[in-house]
Formats: sequence, C-alpha cells, structure tokens
Amino acid sequence: MIPVRHCLKLVPLCSQIRHGSRMFPQLKRGSFNRITDEDVNRFTGIVGETGIKTEELDHYNTDWLNTVSGFTELVISPKSVEEVAAVLRHCNERRLAVVPQGGNTGLVGGSNPVFDEIVLSLERLNNISHIDPYAGIVECEAGVILQNLSDKVGEHGYTVPLDLGARGSCFIGGNLATHAGGLRVVRYGQLRGSVLGMRVVLPDGQILDGRSNMRKDNTGYDIKQLFIGSEGTLGVITDVSLLLPQSPVSVNMALLGCDSFDDVIKCYRLSRQCLGEIVSACEFMDSLCMTSVNDILGLASPLENSHKFYYLVETSGMNMDHDMEKLETCIEKVFESGCATDGVMAASKDQARHMMSLRENIAPALKAVGFNYKYDVSLPIQHMYSLVEQIRNKIRLTEGAFSVGYGHLGDNNLHLNVITPHYSAQALSLIEPFVYEEVSRLKGSISAEHGMGLKKANYLRYSKDPSMIAMMRSLKDVFDPNGIMNPYKLLPWND
Amino acid sequence: MIPVRHCLKLVPLCSQIRHGSRMFPQLKRGSFNRITDEDVNRFTGIVGETGIKTEELDHYNTDWLNTVSGFTELVISPKSVEEVAAVLRHCNERRLAVVPQGGNTGLVGGSNPVFDEIVLSLERLNNISHIDPYAGIVECEAGVILQNLSDKVGEHGYTVPLDLGARGSCFIGGNLATHAGGLRVVRYGQLRGSVLGMRVVLPDGQILDGRSNMRKDNTGYDIKQLFIGSEGTLGVITDVSLLLPQSPVSVNMALLGCDSFDDVIKCYRLSRQCLGEIVSACEFMDSLCMTSVNDILGLASPLENSHKFYYLVETSGMNMDHDMEKLETCIEKVFESGCATDGVMAASKDQARHMMSLRENIAPALKAVGFNYKYDVSLPIQHMYSLVEQIRNKIRLTEGAFSVGYGHLGDNNLHLNVITPHYSAQALSLIEPFVYEEVSRLKGSISAEHGMGLKKANYLRYSKDPSMIAMMRSLKDVFDPNGIMNPYKLLPWND
Repeated sequence: MIPVRHCLKLVPLCSQIRHGSRMFPQLKRGSFNRITDEDVNRFTGIVGETGIKTEELDHYNTDWLNTVSGFTELVISPKSVEEVAAVLRHCNERRLAVVPQGGNTGLVGGSNPVFDEIVLSLERLNNISHIDPYAGIVECEAGVILQNLSDKVGEHGYTVPLDLGARGSCFIGGNLATHAGGLRVVRYGQLRGSVLGMRVVLPDGQILDGRSNMRKDNTGYDIKQLFIGSEGTLGVITDVSLLLPQSPVSVNMALLGCDSFDDVIKCYRLSRQCLGEIVSACEFMDSLCMTSVNDILGLASPLENSHKFYYLVETSGMNMDHDMEKLETCIEKVFESGCATDGVMAASKDQARHMMSLRENIAPALKAVGFNYKYDVSLPIQHMYSLVEQIRNKIRLTEGAFSVGYGHLGDNNLHLNVITPHYSAQALSLIEPFVYEEVSRLKGSISAEHGMGLKKANYLRYSKDPSMIAMMRSLKDVFDPNGIMNPYKLLPWND
Repeated sequence: MIPVRHCLKLVPLCSQIRHGSRMFPQLKRGSFNRITDEDVNRFTGIVGETGIKTEELDHYNTDWLNTVSGFTELVISPKSVEEVAAVLRHCNERRLAVVPQGGNTGLVGGSNPVFDEIVLSLERLNNISHIDPYAGIVECEAGVILQNLSDKVGEHGYTVPLDLGARGSCFIGGNLATHAGGLRVVRYGQLRGSVLGMRVVLPDGQILDGRSNMRKDNTGYDIKQLFIGSEGTLGVITDVSLLLPQSPVSVNMALLGCDSFDDVIKCYRLSRQCLGEIVSACEFMDSLCMTSVNDILGLASPLENSHKFYYLVETSGMNMDHDMEKLETCIEKVFESGCATDGVMAASKDQARHMMSLRENIAPALKAVGFNYKYDVSLPIQHMYSLVEQIRNKIRLTEGAFSVGYGHLGDNNLHLNVITPHYSAQALSLIEPFVYEEVSRLKGSISAEHGMGLKKANYLRYSKDPSMIAMMRSLKDVFDPNGIMNPYKLLPWND
C-alpha cells in the first residue's frame, strides 16, 4: 500500500508546465494560412464586434487539465447557424484552420488549439429552442451548458440521458461531438441512441439539415451518427433534438467497501441481478482515489474504515417503496455473499449527492496535486484493475509518482490516472505505449469516452483496424477536403 | 363504420399480381453486365456447388408481400466472410449488380432483385460464434434467424433488444441493414444503440473489420452506424456483436378498449407515468385490425365487446410483485380517468402471448385478403390517426378498398395499410404522394422502421433535406463507386 497521504501534495496550478504543442515536438504546423487583419474584418462583419475576441484568450487556448495549450489570437463566437456557416465558408476559402470549442472540458487536448487555429466558440449559440412536454423531447443549440439543459427539462419532469462531472461547464454540442459517456450510460445507453435530429455546418459553409423529432426514422443513411464522436473534425454541430427519459421519482444510492477487485465485480453482478431495470450508475474507485478526495478536497468518506476498493451503486425508479425494497434485498445478498465488508445506504438526497461527489471529485482532486496522465479505456471487466497494478509496478521507482484506478464499472470503463509532481517525459515513456499495447492485446478500447483528441490520435491503430482508419480518412476527405477542421486531432498525424 | 366483415374476403395468394419491376414501368435496368457461365464457374470456385442456386428461385425473387419480384437466375450463399469478399470482388470487377438478402421479410421491396441482380444470400452464414454470459454479449454472423438468436441467448438469461413479428424468418443481419424497429424500441431504444461491433464487406472485397465487444469505444468515427440502416447499398454486414439486456423475470400485459384515439393517447400517457422503467411495449390498433385478425385468422379478442380502438401495454421487469402492483395501479387510474371502457390483464404467459399475437397477426391477416399498400410512418402522436381517417376518406369510393391503422404508439410509429382486392394504380394515385406530403407537412418520417427499399426510394425528399440526400450520394460513391450494391433501392432513381 502506497502511503498516499504523504505522496499527495498540493501544487499551485500556476506552477504547472503548459506544454502546448511542445508536448509533441515532432508535430509541425499544417500549411494553413495565417490570419490577416482583412480576415478579422471579414469575421467581424459576420458576427459583429461582440462575437470577436482577440485578447485574454488563455481560457480558450488551454485545456482543463492545463496540459496542452495553443496560441490562437482569434476567438469567434457566432450567434446563429448562418453565422457559423459564413465563418466556416471564409475559413475554408482562405485555408484557415479552425477548432470548434464547447465548454473546453475535454481531457485529451481535443478542444483547444495546438498552434494558431481559430477558435470557433459555440458559447453564444445557447438557446433552448423548444421542450415538448408530452413527447419528452428537447430542441436546443449546441452551446447550452449541460447543467442548464438538465435544470430546464427537469422543470417538465424529464432528465437528460447523460450526466458527467463537468456538467456545470460542458456544452451539449461538445458532449455530442465527443460522444461523452459519463454516469448514466448503464441506464440510458450511449448518448447517440437518444439523438433524434441534428443540424451541422460543413467546412464549406453548407448546412446539413437533419433536424427531426421522430423517435424512429429509417429514411436513408444516418449521417448524424458520423458527427457524433467526430470531435469537430468533420463539421460543427449547431442544433440537436434529444429524446428525454422521465425524471425518476426516487433515487437511491449505496456505497460498499470491498477487499479486492474480484469482490467489486461480485458486488456489481449481484446488483445487476437484483436491481435490473432501476440501476442507473455502477461506479468503482480504489483506496487512493478515496484518500485523494478525502485529503485534497476535504470530502469525508461515509464509511468508518478505509477499504481497498469502493463500489457505488445508484438506482433511479418510479416507485420509492419498490426501489428501496430492491436495493435492500441487493445489499443483504451482497453481505450474505461476503463480497463487501462494509456499506452504507444514503438516507437522504444530500447524503446521496455527497456519495456521488466522492466519485465525481476524483479528477479535480488529482488535478490539484500534479501532472495527470489520464487513460480512459474499455476492458473486459476481469482485466480492468490488473492494468492499474501493472502501471503501478512500472512507475514504482519514479519519484513522487502514483497511480489510481476508478471508473464506470457497468460500462467496463476504467479511468487509469498516473500523477507525477510535474510533467515527466521519462514517466510518460514508462506508461506509453505499454498501456495501449495491453489494452489492444485484451481487445479493449484505448478511448472509452474521452475521445482521441490530440493526445491519443497517434495511437488510433491500437483500437482500430487499418481498414477502418483508411475509411475514416476517406470520410474526412469527403466532409473536409481542405483539412481545416480541428487539425492534428482524432486521426494520426505522425504517419 | 365500414362493415369490415363484408369487405374482407380471402383471396388465394396465387391470384395476386406479381408486379416485379413492372410496378415502376419507368425504372430501367442499370448498365450492369449480365452473368455469364464463366461468372457462375468463378462463383462456384469460391463458394462450392452447395453455395450456388440457379433453379427454384421464386422465394429469393419475390418479396414477402408478393408485391414486387425480380428475375435473378443466380443465388450465391457464402459460408465465410472471405467467401463474401471474394464474391463481391468479382461482382465489382465485372460490374454485376448484387442484392444482399437476409430472411427476405422486408416490406418495401428492398431485399429482392428488381431485374436480374445476383442474390447474395446470408443464409449459410448463421453461426452464433460466442455468448459471454457475464458481460451479456453475443457475437454472431449475419444469417442467424432472430428467433434462434433469441432462444440461444435466452438459455443464458438474456434477451435480444429487438423483437418483431417476422422473428421466425428474419436474419439479424437484415435487421441491422434495415435498422428494424419492432416492439421493444420503447424499452431498449433503437437497435443501433446495442451494436458493439460489426464486420462489413465492401463491394471491392475489402473487409472493414470493426469487431468489438466494448460498451464504450470513442476511437474515431463510428462507421458501423452508416451500415446500420443502409439496406445493403453500401456493403454486406457479415458479423455483429450485440449487447443484451437481462431476460425479464416477469412479463405482464393488458389490453384496453377505447372509444377514441384521444383516449388511446391518454391511456398511453398514464401507462408511461405509472409504469416508468418497466414498460416494454405500447401498441395500438383500430377496430378493423381487430376484426381482421378475428375473422381472417380466427384469433378471438379477449374483450367481450368490440371497441373503436385497442391499446396494448406490456411490462417486463425483475420483480413480479412490484410489476403487478404497478400495472394494477395503472389500470385503476386508466378506468378512473375514463379513457378506457373495458380491459383485461393477462393471467398467464399463454394469455399474454395470445394478446400479443392479435397485434402481431394484423399484417399476415391483411396480406391474406388483398393487395396491401403499406405505409410505415412516424408522426407527432396527436396526428397519428387523423392520417388514417384522411386516407379512408380518399379511398371511400374505391370498390372493395379499406384502410386500417395500428402500430407502435410508444415510438410514434403508425402502420397505415390500405387494402384493395387487387393491385390498382388508380387506388395508389389516391394515396400517393398525398400520404407523403402529409407526413412531410407534419414533420414526420415517411419510413419509421421499414426503410426505403424500392417502393419508397423516390419519396426520400419528403423526409430528407436536399443537403442530406446529396451527402448520402457522396457517401454511396465512397463505399460503392460502381453502384453494384442493391441498385434502385434507398436512394431516388427517378432523378
């Protein structure tokens, strides 16, 4: 057991190295034109002065983790789909590279510039156009913050079929462009299944209008699916219609302490069996995660003792009595089977929120103590934690380094994080490409929910067959023949 | 009220007109080569003699409805993905047109040849390769019959997240290629959301290997989504991995009689509110549907009196007591509100099966009495039945014609059927393009779950923006530059 309380140390954010494109010294700027005053005048003519920013652009240039940053000198914020189209048309004609940006909460360096790409911010395209209270459908623009969307549809008895820690900052358009996963996939399925319609602007300014509020629509190729998860490399999502599940009447939660990852798996399987259709989150974390949020953020564990692993299960249903009975039966079975040694059920909404906040604050806590090497992988459940142990073994001699594992157990989604006091190329070389080789060997995915961005793009081959990568390039050429959309992201740039 | 018992009359199937490509006299054969003996020898070399059929091909040439048929003289049934690739490569080199065919249960003339296209049958690619009993994932080939797949995964406590009347004949590959809907969409979402991995053969013989068993995989464009719903026009799906829901412990059903479609909607809304997460089917039918299955197929209604409309609701859950309590509460509220005047709950599995069979046998019953003009549309719920009434009014003077409405209320999916004793171009002209214009005006979809096939291809513009159709053509050119895959289907051929 690593004495975590000693190795975790708060490092002021300003001392973090901002690597920008220097993290990849071999990456060269593409042959795009540079922005001229004439371009800026043209853009100002399209979006107005309030839609143009040329100063104090740090927030747009740097990722949430403070690990990569570019040096754009121009941020454009259109107010309508037509303005997006006019901006892109000019960029395309002038061969100016563009990064579409939502809440800039991505973790793979996909949403900020690498060099001087123009940032096309969706922040002013934030209208919730319509909520159909009978059909349970919301139409909104891409720049709506997830929390705002959730609050608004909540007033009508619905919930968004997506929830994640960044809800207060991330935009629904960015969620779609990166196909964000999060906590509710185990209940509501992948986000793409809830998207009914979408409007997208292509780099040449063409508006692909696929707006629809129909739950079933088998009229030709479902092109919007290509844009979901394309990370802004094919076009810009401007509008979306989402199918909304009803807000649950009762939400319950339990946190269990386990002695081994095998026991966590047993808890998970029992909970799926007992809870069936009301399961809405199945999360796990290791002891280092728990001590991180306890020590760094001062969030207390509701369990008296510490445990090697924690399993958090949430239910959401329409009948409090039924749901509680199911959860109690589940907990009984868990203890009968001996796969948990301790556990608590939330007795109030506040307690439930606190339990979930322990899980959700792992990333902010880790961000505060050093440089984060983040791996977001899918693996067969039985292999999920052994990867963390392998990496832990590899970095054991690196000073101040430690690794943690947590994630969405119900989706086989492991978040493996390595933290060092400062960025270390040597530490990185211990982790990569080993981590990708292992995931590939186990037929996992090297990006479960974060996407490829800048950081993972060159590793695409570990998860995708050459035939698939070649086809992706063909499709990129169809939609963005000049390659101006979010260059250096998603597709390998080192070949 | 139309006296249905008088207008329904059994017509022997052999007297049905087989229209084949003659339904569309303006449709000309594409400039594909004709099959030579040398081609047949080459194909025989690839798939062996048992994989080649040149006689008794009616079943392959004609659609399930007996409304369209082609005149292929060659059916090829490969046994492996490599054989599929070799067959397609030769077809592509020789510019021979190909129709990939599953169970040939489609309703839009999409799965059978129009002229002399080679039928590439997936019937021998029917291996269930692997079931992971812990993860709830099945890997199988495209030619597995849905019922067989369902039975097999049922042995491991799982169910297929798709069910439809044709389950005994349709293939899972065809379900994917057409993005079949059916009864369970309201519970498990669209089929595309449950597809984890897929292998596809392109017309040039290239194998696009996107096999994966990961629930989350954000590594680049989700290309498999393009093939789902592409109706065999881009390539041939050969393998798939599906995520399976647990088999429910309890399945309950209720059938309600209503006086108006508004009352049906009220029943539906109450059932969604009361039953929440356990709802697994929300179906409706009008009185003509019920009398059709009663009279033609001899299936008795469990309700004593006849009603203008029927609403059928199914629940699937993990706790019989809880589910029954929820359903009973729901029925109580329905009767309190007065939106149903009669109703029964199934007291056994047999009774539930019988209730569902009433709904499922509408199509076979209607097929037996005449020529079927089938419209499978999505509409805002409040407009679903008024379209049936408009059509009924339009055909009121056509001798022997009648129309019915039924469908998946929970998905806003109306099946509008018009039946005439024999095919009538005059009747057709009363219905089309009016039905598409109306659906388009109401922002519905002209094909909710059946696809476009041959019959609907020219109407694509009623549901898709010109920008979308143009992009579909661009994508078709990327995957199938010679246009050999399922020509005359999905994309308009009259422009």
